[in-house]
Amino acid sequence: MSRFWSRHVSALQPYVPGEQPKLTNLVKLNTNENPFGPSPQVLAAIEAELNDSLRLYPDPESVALRRTIADYYELSPEQVFVGNGSDEVLAHIFQALLQQPRPLLFPDITYSFYPVYSQLYGVAYEAIPLADDLTINLADYRRPCGGILFPNPNAPTGCLLSLEAIEELLCDQPDTLVVVDEAYIDFGGESAVALINRHDNLLVVQTLSKSRSLAGLRVGLALGHRDLIDGLVRVKNSFNSYPLDRLAQAGAVAAFEDRDWFEQTRQAVIAGRERLTAGLQALGFEVLPSAANFVFARHPGHDGAELTAQLRSRGIIVRHFTAARIDQFLRVTVGTEEQVTRFLAAMTELVAQ
Amino acid sequence: MSRFWSRHVSALQPYVPGEQPKLTNLVKLNTNENPFGPSPQVLAAIEAELNDSLRLYPDPESVALRRTIADYYELSPEQVFVGNGSDEVLAHIFQALLQQPRPLLFPDITYSFYPVYSQLYGVAYEAIPLADDLTINLADYRRPCGGILFPNPNAPTGCLLSLEAIEELLCDQPDTLVVVDEAYIDFGGESAVALINRHDNLLVVQTLSKSRSLAGLRVGLALGHRDLIDGLVRVKNSFNSYPLDRLAQAGAVAAFEDRDWFEQTRQAVIAGRERLTAGLQALGFEVLPSAANFVFARHPGHDGAELTAQLRSRGIIVRHFTAARIDQFLRVTVGTEEQVTRFLAAMTELVAQ
Repeated sequence: MSRFWSRHVSALQPYVPGEQPKLTNLVKLNTNENPFGPSPQVLAAIEAELNDSLRLYPDPESVALRRTIADYYELSPEQVFVGNGSDEVLAHIFQALLQQPRPLLFPDITYSFYPVYSQLYGVAYEAIPLADDLTINLADYRRPCGGILFPNPNAPTGCLLSLEAIEELLCDQPDTLVVVDEAYIDFGGESAVALINRHDNLLVVQTLSKSRSLAGLRVGLALGHRDLIDGLVRVKNSFNSYPLDRLAQAGAVAAFEDRDWFEQTRQAVIAGRERLTAGLQALGFEVLPSAANFVFARHPGHDGAELTAQLRSRGIIVRHFTAARIDQFLRVTVGTEEQVTRFLAAMTELVAQ
Repeated sequence: MSRFWSRHVSALQPYVPGEQPKLTNLVKLNTNENPFGPSPQVLAAIEAELNDSLRLYPDPESVALRRTIADYYELSPEQVFVGNGSDEVLAHIFQALLQQPRPLLFPDITYSFYPVYSQLYGVAYEAIPLADDLTINLADYRRPCGGILFPNPNAPTGCLLSLEAIEELLCDQPDTLVVVDEAYIDFGGESAVALINRHDNLLVVQTLSKSRSLAGLRVGLALGHRDLIDGLVRVKNSFNSYPLDRLAQAGAVAAFEDRDWFEQTRQAVIAGRERLTAGLQALGFEVLPSAANFVFARHPGHDGAELTAQLRSRGIIVRHFTAARIDQFLRVTVGTEEQVTRFLAAMTELVAQ
């Protein structure tokens, strides 16, 4: 606390990211990173930019990257916004589009950054409880509000909504903005991008941190009607003209261009998830159906916090949340084949105890 | 305009950065970039990070970079905040520290992003006129207010305030936060960092875009009492946990470690500025005394906008502002020796006409 802080600062409860341990040789299954590295074409594209041109400002509008993404999704560049990770993109969405007279709606169990943004930007919200099976029931969102926001698949559950359910919501409430956070969509869902040209009340958010193996590069994006993108651009240009550095822009272009690498690594993660799920089920775990690069699982006979601590003592880090209804679950990122094997071996020992 | 925009969005007047032309072979003297590339050690440090580890999130707290900067300035890491360019750092300062009941004070002629941030964060401000010689008179700031912000040296004038004058202000108003934006300090000023341990109401902002030749990498910093830094961290962690990517953190560490490169390029820029100043004066220009990597100059017989346009038609870009009192001035970045020669040759022709 300081006499110089703005009034709201002491009330903020910042987001706490998953641990980034300094130790090596840990099996790190706690922050949903991709077990595979980025495309070699990404590394080559960054290397090609690694020269004296770093003295020059980057393109403030990231034109080449926005054009690449537009081509990839068959949109126009005016329907594409990019930022310094999807966290920054989400922050701008809260400020540009979600400060409304009515409260924002999002799930009670979801990405825990949403209530933090709400507090930072003074956005009132209502947390809508998940159904008993921990899925999102979009019927619960059909009411007057200032906007609707949810991840698809949801985190930390991994549960997926169908495109049909999302389109029904968009049709039902044409004057309500619906923001679909697709951080994990490439691991088994169908993107709502396909609905953008039919619905001007849809904004889709994606990241290169997960399916593009670039958590370390910080690139995220939003896709939607150009008027929505315009609003984001106005806030961005009032905040930071140059959010994406020259290397990130070059690397992100290459990540979208190398479709083979994307497809191979994505399929390998999906195969790993199925093996992880089957292995946990064989040990007696209840595993929620996941369309993401992680699974969410609990054991009827073992406490979630206790299992997390015991895994850690064996050099394996997973994520555990203390919120009601999910405090018995572990969120386990899909690792490499070897990591999945090591995780299942450790879990077999723990559950046998 | 869109029915989905937050109420304040349509009133925003975003910052307009200097043009980043796509054409090559232009003499680009419009955005105060360093004419010399970054240290080879910076490129090597980034290259060493260019591998599969990009799949992992960066250190959210940038510990290694903050420690390096702390060592450089003989501070503790808790006195160091880093962000995605000093523009992002300034934005966080507005939100964390400058939303106060009383208005913020900054110069009427200064970095034109300050009124944009004020609008974005609803910070009332008073623009204090520069003195007749276009310098900042700190006596004009000695009154009750919500904070004081100025660049030193000021932009776009290049005029420098002494450390004595700044310390007098800090002593005079111990309960007012004073933010000194030192984007250009390394080109001829004395940093106010030396005053930090004596004054808890001082925050110093710097960037790696100018004297460290890394405009393309986006790294900025703030230095001050740990309570001020804490306030910034709270806002940063409510906005984006990972503002600096892995490559930027590695490159920025190396930029502070290679003191020889910094010193050589800095001295070359200062020498170029003196040559540019003398050349313009010989052509009849009034040149403000500059401590930055640019000069601000006007000619009694030639219109500023006209000269800017004529330079452009010769492939040379400088920056021209239309605000009252400075609309006859050109802001010219110090280029390489060859660029300064080419600029002065073009100007000689134009002024002779």
